[in-house]
This record gives sequence, C-alpha cells and structure tokens, in this order.
Amino acid sequence: MDKLYIGVDIGGTMIKTGIFTAAGELLRKWEIPTDISNSGNRILADITVSIRDNLKQNSWGFKQVAGVGVGVPGPVLESGYLENCVNLGWGNIYPAEALSELLDGIPVVTGNDANMAALGEYWQGSGKGFRSIVFITLGTGVGSGIIVNGKMLYGAKGLCGEIGHISVNPEETEVCNCGHMGCLDQMASAIGLVRNGKRILARNTEPSLLRKQATLSAKQILDAAKAGDRLAVETVEYCMKFLGKSISDMSYIVDPEVFIIGGGVSKAGDFIIAIIRKYYEEHAQLVSGKAQIILAELGNDAGIYGAAKLSYDMCNE
Amino acid sequence: MDKLYIGVDIGGTMIKTGIFTAAGELLRKWEIPTDISNSGNRILADITVSIRDNLKQNSWGFKQVAGVGVGVPGPVLESGYLENCVNLGWGNIYPAEALSELLDGIPVVTGNDANMAALGEYWQGSGKGFRSIVFITLGTGVGSGIIVNGKMLYGAKGLCGEIGHISVNPEETEVCNCGHMGCLDQMASAIGLVRNGKRILARNTEPSLLRKQATLSAKQILDAAKAGDRLAVETVEYCMKFLGKSISDMSYIVDPEVFIIGGGVSKAGDFIIAIIRKYYEEHAQLVSGKAQIILAELGNDAGIYGAAKLSYDMCNE
Repeated sequence: MDKLYIGVDIGGTMIKTGIFTAAGELLRKWEIPTDISNSGNRILADITVSIRDNLKQNSWGFKQVAGVGVGVPGPVLESGYLENCVNLGWGNIYPAEALSELLDGIPVVTGNDANMAALGEYWQGSGKGFRSIVFITLGTGVGSGIIVNGKMLYGAKGLCGEIGHISVNPEETEVCNCGHMGCLDQMASAIGLVRNGKRILARNTEPSLLRKQATLSAKQILDAAKAGDRLAVETVEYCMKFLGKSISDMSYIVDPEVFIIGGGVSKAGDFIIAIIRKYYEEHAQLVSGKAQIILAELGNDAGIYGAAKLSYDMCNE
Repeated sequence: MDKLYIGVDIGGTMIKTGIFTAAGELLRKWEIPTDISNSGNRILADITVSIRDNLKQNSWGFKQVAGVGVGVPGPVLESGYLENCVNLGWGNIYPAEALSELLDGIPVVTGNDANMAALGEYWQGSGKGFRSIVFITLGTGVGSGIIVNGKMLYGAKGLCGEIGHISVNPEETEVCNCGHMGCLDQMASAIGLVRNGKRILARNTEPSLLRKQATLSAKQILDAAKAGDRLAVETVEYCMKFLGKSISDMSYIVDPEVFIIGGGVSKAGDFIIAIIRKYYEEHAQLVSGKAQIILAELGNDAGIYGAAKLSYDMCNE
C-alpha cells in the first residue's frame, strides 16, 4: 500500500487539490470553490471534507496519506505562521496546525503559492533535473519562487520571490498598488501589458490590429505582436525589457541554473521567451548565456505538485 | 584537546589566516603575501607552510586541526571547482582538494570571499542571532553574500551575491568593467563615489571642501558630507540612492532578516546607514521597516571567520 501525498492550492476563487504518489504521479485532482465569507473560516473544513470524500470515492484509505501540503496566497512563514492574507480574509493563524487537527493529525505543511508552484516545476515540470531554479509567473501580477539545492526559500517575512515589487522603471509616473512607482508588476504582468499597450496606442496615430478591440487584453497584444503588428511588438518589447533586466539582476543575486517562465503571459510560448532572453543577455554581460530561460510545463497544476512535494520532503527528511 | 578550525582568506595581495575554536574564538591570526607569479602556483604551498609553522610556534598539534576553509576571490562552485580566478591566475582547478593533499588529508572547503565574509558576520559578527542575512561590502567594488537559514548560498555558477553588476541606473553613459552600463558597482563603491563626486563638482560652480583635494578619495567625500558640504552630501545621496533601491529589490527577492553593511565605505558609520535606509524605505513600500540595516563588525577579519565556520559546518553536519 503505497503512501499518498496531497497537494492543496488555495486560490481566491477556487481551491485545487491533487493526490500524488511518492514518485510524483498525479492520481486524481479536483476543485472546490473558495468560501471567503466570514473571514474564510470555512476554508479548512471544506478542504477536509473534500479530501475525505475523494479518498473514499477512490477506495484509498485515510491512513495511506503520509502528508498534506497547502499553498496559500499570502506570506506564510517557514514556522507556519500567517500574519495576514487579504485574499482569504485570514489573519494571525497557523493554517497547517489547524488543518492537521481536522485531518486527525496527518502532518500538514504550508508555503506561499508562487513558491509552491516553483517547487512543483522543480519536481515534475520543466525544472526536473535542475538543482536550483527561479520560477517566474506572469499573470495578473508578477510573482516568483526560488529553489536552491532542492529547497524552497521562504524568506524571513514570507516575501521571498515577491519580485512584482522590485523597482525597474524610474520613469514610471503611475502609482503601483504597493504605493511605489515603477514596479515590475506595472510592466511585465498581463495588466502591465494592457496598461502600456493603451499608452503606446494613445501616443501613436499609425494603424494597429489593437485599435479594433473594444477592450484590450494581454492575449490580444501578444497575438497581434506575433502577427507582426508594430505597436503590439513595441508594447511587448517595452514591457519585457524590464523583465529581462530583472532576470539579469536575479542571476547576480541568486544565480540559478534556469529561469522558468509560467503564468498566462507565458502562453505566448517561444515568442515571448526570445524577447525576454534578448534583454536578459543585453544586461547580464558577466553571466551571458549561463542561465537558461525556458517555459513552465505544469500550468495551473504547478501549485498542487509543489504542495505535494513539500509534504513529501517534510515526511522523508 | 579541543579541535581547531582554520580560516584562510586569499586576497590579490595578501593571504590572511586565522586559527579558531569550535566556539568561534579567534586564537591567532597572521598574513603572508600572495605570490601571483607563475599563475599563482605557489599559493597553496605557501599557505601550507604558514599553517604548519604557526601551529608549531604555538605548540598546537597538527592533528588538532579538524578542518580548513578557504575564501577565494572568484566564483568557486559548491563542488569546489573554480573555472577561472583572474586575481590569482588560477583556472580549471579544485583548490580544496589540492590543499587537502598538501595538508595530509585534513578536509578543506572553499567558498567565494564575499560569501565567506557574510558567513563570518553571521557567525561571530553583527549577524549573530539572525538566521538569514545579506552582507554587503562597499569597497573598491560592491559585493555581497547571502546566508539563508544558516547556509551560505553559492549559486549555480558561483555568482551568488555578485550584486556589483545588477543594473540600477539606466541614465549612466560610462561602460562598467563588465561591459554593461549603470551597474551598482559604478555607483555605490568607493570608486563610484569618487567618479560621481568628480562629475558633480564639474557641473557645479559653488565652493566645496572637495575642491581643495589634489586627488579625491571616497573617504574625503564621506568626511566632507558629514561636515555638511553640500556637493559632498549630493554625491553621497546620489550614490546611496541606488544602493537603497537595490536593498529594497533584494528584500523582495531573498527577504533576509537583516542587511549588514561592511567594506571601506561603511566606515562612515551611522551616517551612511541612515542615508541607505532612507532610500531603502522609499522603495520598499510593502516591506518598509521590516528588514534591519546595520553595520558589519568584523572588518577585514570577516573572511577568515567565515572560512573557519564553513570548515566547522563541513566537519560537524
């Protein structure tokens, strides 16, 4: 009877859960809605019920579960303490301890969601075979997770990898949601692409595929850029220049073997990788060509893979 | 008969060595010149002789030495491999293995010099009591070392903490020795202070204490700034703004508990810390006030402390 490891990824709207073998095979996955009413105080009970139900449906014994990992969309510490998680309404709690109690004492471990996704890509995604990676997710915002010698870094305040708020553009005049101006979030995220695309359209008069859109999306900008639309290309180059510079800076700071790019914007594939790499190499003169930049493989499942891997590490070290 | 741990810090002109107890007490230290002739092929033999001589002079038995750590001014890997070290003329070698052979098999471990200094401050300097620190040295150039949960990070290519070449100033027009423009080295190092001080003096006509100097040094600029000289203050603020921004970025990337500032420029004391902190807090809106910025304590001995600590870790884990 093989041991099972469960990975949970709590998002602001849905909770994903997956059941894994020790070897990293995903046996079953499912989603339930995230109930953020009443300061999210039903979330852990909902997770417990859904785990028990799914084990029963598949005739897996509860005792087969060796550990559970949970990705949380907030700065959870290595000690398990979470001071504040605005997305869920949680504050001042130890979610791993609380969930472990609901699960009759099965050991539970927590981590930040982007860090968990990094660990997932390291374990079973495009980071497989590397020892040290930086996973960067380009979605609504920009986040990242850092794995050094197979270990996920938490950071002293749970902020490790929160690269959305590194300062990249001193010329930016709009204020970021962090209160500063010129953050990477304002440039290389899906929202950043749209915001900068609108600016570039406004200050140019030339025709563009993008002018035909009622509302502009990052996907439309990326598709138009792939089709050679000049203003769309200008937008993508402008935004990714800042990401390439940031990757160069991270090469000098944490020096991973590979940067793995995921999130919605990465669906533009090799097209976007080539642009990022161009600006990375322009900046990283000393490390040029030394770190690889590749696409993520696990998509939205990266978080549950990483959470399961963290529980595996907890149980087997 | 207590075990001894030896820390060696190989610099371009001098090699420092210290003998330590397991508890981190420095029992004796000395220096010998670095012989970089003939591709530095005498360096390890010179270290061996000086260690044997010093042990004998103090009636310590050779067998008391549990381990030796060596800080190297180049990107040595965690495996011990050093591809290239221009300062010493070394290339394509495993210095730890070679030195261990000369020392009758005593285990030897290597690390980059700035990373070793970080480990030294963590062990017995101002990082004592913290688990995760970033040590930044402001000397001829800018370097750093990162300790996470008590472990020194090497990086995949031995470049971890090489923050002198992160891009901080897109307006810079002079080329850095790395080939790029606008590196932190060009701003926050002693050379950066002098370079920018000269520029500021050249484009202003107002009187300044600095105009009385035949040749300008970083110390003169810092002393004049402390005395309230307006152009000196402008120079220091201009240069340290980029360091404060970089510390903010590093808060979001590696999120240490504390940043420890060492190197020649740090001799300006609390005066320079206050300026760095001002710009750190301006940029780090989300982490404002969360990481401490403090002065290093061990000065030029940090490297031998760290090297001894790394050998201690090697022998006791």
